[in-house]
Amino acid sequence: MTTASLKQMGLWAKQAAFAMAKASASQKNEALSALADQLNQAEEKILEANEHDKQLARSAKLSEALIDRLSLTGRISALAADVRQVVSLSDPIGEEFERATLDNGLHVCKRRTPIGVLGVIYESRPNVTIDVAALTIKTGNCAILRGGSETLQTNQALLSLIQNALQSADLPINAIQMVPTADREQVKSLLKLHESIDLIIPRGGAQLHQFCRENSTIPVITGGIGICHLFVDESADQQRALEVIYNAKTQRPSVCNALDTLLVHTSIAETFIPKVVERLQQGFVKFRVDQKTWQLFQGSGHTLDGISRAEEKDWDTEWLSLILGIRIVENLDEAIQHIRNHSTGHSDGILTQHQDHAEQFLQEIDSAALYVNASTRFTDGAQLGLGAEVAVSTQKIHARGPMGLKELTTYKWIIQGNYHIRS
Amino acid sequence: MTTASLKQMGLWAKQAAFAMAKASASQKNEALSALADQLNQAEEKILEANEHDKQLARSAKLSEALIDRLSLTGRISALAADVRQVVSLSDPIGEEFERATLDNGLHVCKRRTPIGVLGVIYESRPNVTIDVAALTIKTGNCAILRGGSETLQTNQALLSLIQNALQSADLPINAIQMVPTADREQVKSLLKLHESIDLIIPRGGAQLHQFCRENSTIPVITGGIGICHLFVDESADQQRALEVIYNAKTQRPSVCNALDTLLVHTSIAETFIPKVVERLQQGFVKFRVDQKTWQLFQGSGHTLDGISRAEEKDWDTEWLSLILGIRIVENLDEAIQHIRNHSTGHSDGILTQHQDHAEQFLQEIDSAALYVNASTRFTDGAQLGLGAEVAVSTQKIHARGPMGLKELTTYKWIIQGNYHIRS
Repeated sequence: MTTASLKQMGLWAKQAAFAMAKASASQKNEALSALADQLNQAEEKILEANEHDKQLARSAKLSEALIDRLSLTGRISALAADVRQVVSLSDPIGEEFERATLDNGLHVCKRRTPIGVLGVIYESRPNVTIDVAALTIKTGNCAILRGGSETLQTNQALLSLIQNALQSADLPINAIQMVPTADREQVKSLLKLHESIDLIIPRGGAQLHQFCRENSTIPVITGGIGICHLFVDESADQQRALEVIYNAKTQRPSVCNALDTLLVHTSIAETFIPKVVERLQQGFVKFRVDQKTWQLFQGSGHTLDGISRAEEKDWDTEWLSLILGIRIVENLDEAIQHIRNHSTGHSDGILTQHQDHAEQFLQEIDSAALYVNASTRFTDGAQLGLGAEVAVSTQKIHARGPMGLKELTTYKWIIQGNYHIRS
Repeated sequence: MTTASLKQMGLWAKQAAFAMAKASASQKNEALSALADQLNQAEEKILEANEHDKQLARSAKLSEALIDRLSLTGRISALAADVRQVVSLSDPIGEEFERATLDNGLHVCKRRTPIGVLGVIYESRPNVTIDVAALTIKTGNCAILRGGSETLQTNQALLSLIQNALQSADLPINAIQMVPTADREQVKSLLKLHESIDLIIPRGGAQLHQFCRENSTIPVITGGIGICHLFVDESADQQRALEVIYNAKTQRPSVCNALDTLLVHTSIAETFIPKVVERLQQGFVKFRVDQKTWQLFQGSGHTLDGISRAEEKDWDTEWLSLILGIRIVENLDEAIQHIRNHSTGHSDGILTQHQDHAEQFLQEIDSAALYVNASTRFTDGAQLGLGAEVAVSTQKIHARGPMGLKELTTYKWIIQGNYHIRS
């Protein structure tokens, strides 16, 4: 695929964006319902393409974990159900807000519109193809998708269903297009199509986000990397705190909102930390602890199995696995300082009974999601009431934290007058 | 100045951002009032530095127009008044919105916070230094400024007033810093400080915006380039339309929201276009017209003085001067198509008595500001009720159109529970 044909895809998308922007809610829902139906009907065909990808992956000796990530076996009806869930959400497009009549009589408002053309770059999971297409269509946007090289066949099969569904609702098939090769140079070219793409959404690891940030001339939503902290204040309800920590670390350790580092107030460290270790060992967690915690365990009679000394770089590591850093801090200020130095600005929390400590924490930590007495695992569009999620942003502009339908929109200023002139 | 010291400035700014984020509205206003006072008191000293810059500019044989742009003579009390105006605006920081209690009892809201550290890159006008500093302080942000090379002395003098004012209100002086050289390589380094700068705001011409977009690893607000259109529908009140066109073209032709191209419905072209030419010639406007308009004038007895044939590239030119493109279109659809092809998405309008034509125009044109029966000159933060303006965005994410105080903020998600865990 040449850069010229990539440009052509951009122009087609931009053209399709005009039709998508004026599509009615029911027309967009019609396309989504058709897509859900087709997913159910074409299950066999999708799984055939998916099997092809899995065989190639096996010949290429990819890990079983990776092959599992790209497998759609047993997952298609859930995908269709997700699309139907998007149908049930309300359409944000066309909403008017901040309406005002100015002193000179001009009527001003903002009207919510699609962003236009999204460039979505993702890795192995082919379910992203459907998730992103559904949210894109619902919000009247267009998308150029670039999935992982391991799922080319599966993605092609899914794309043809998406385009059929668009067509059946009289919407332009070019609303959702896919870069048909997995060449990294093509990604670079995609990242420079600022004349036709309005926003890049990478879905993948830190390396992908960095690659996009460094090569894109289009705004990029970076996020999805979470070094998450909980600080246990001296006043916390320790018994219940244990369960929050257990949940935040073990409920799904491989995701970005899982706990990475536990900070414990020094005055409760000696009694509380051994309880943490005991509880979390039931979930097979291993620990990287600071010097003070290490000393606390030396000669305490506690087993040191699964406990090791943390190195400085460990505080800057997103574990994505059953490892937890533990550090003792003198007070709330030291906890705040540690989080400022090491957080990726994703999800951080405090466990405390002191409202003023909670307030200081909320005021002085600058992360996308801040928790008081709750697990960090709630940073998720569905959990926080958005109904759907396209990404979790940890940058500061446009949207922060979970991004749902509204975060895939922008607005126009509409100014209506009576032949008004500026004096 | 080395890249290492630029990095150091970034770290200082990031540090200062924590103090700025928790400063109270009255503390920030105290700094702004002190700044306004100091501007009044230090007028002589500022003008001395400004005179130095102007002399250098004269020796470098810069144009008188440019030297006028960098001059502060007679402009300082207006600058101080602008700062006092910012004091009078309400502080958006800390506002909580989208508050909800979820089914599981979690209390969720978004709390408005500063973005953090802004990188503002601008050209000759030194008043931008004060304007940007005032809006930055008011919103609890920090900024690293990089002004034009022609105004180094003036900007240094202004910076020292700003930092004095910060200090007098017990705010960190590193909240507003300035890159002390005008080396373009330094701008490149600044654009890659994504570890400490959250947003780049370029204020200048198309070339500066392009340079930022191509070199930045930080989100950039692009905008400020306006190829603006008015379409005169067959139903428009022609007499009043003339005055709107006159205003949009001549009231301040050098700015981005001035009219560039007039599209006229074919059924009124023969009578209306000669009136437009006659009225706008009173404002010394010259015309670039399409083939049909040209034919209309041939042999009509009208003078052809100041009227020439448009070349294709003229429709893609932001005139910034007393030139107006005129084109006859068959109907609203052709007008919409022309605007889609040539607009920069800044400000476009329709003059019509048909509400359904207005609605189609509003629906089908995707620009930051859309007008019905009003001059495009209203696209301006002060005119549209924002009280102040840091930039006019023509990109789609974060903010679109005039950006005021609220557009210099982001939000945190605040989630408060009772030791909630995710099931």
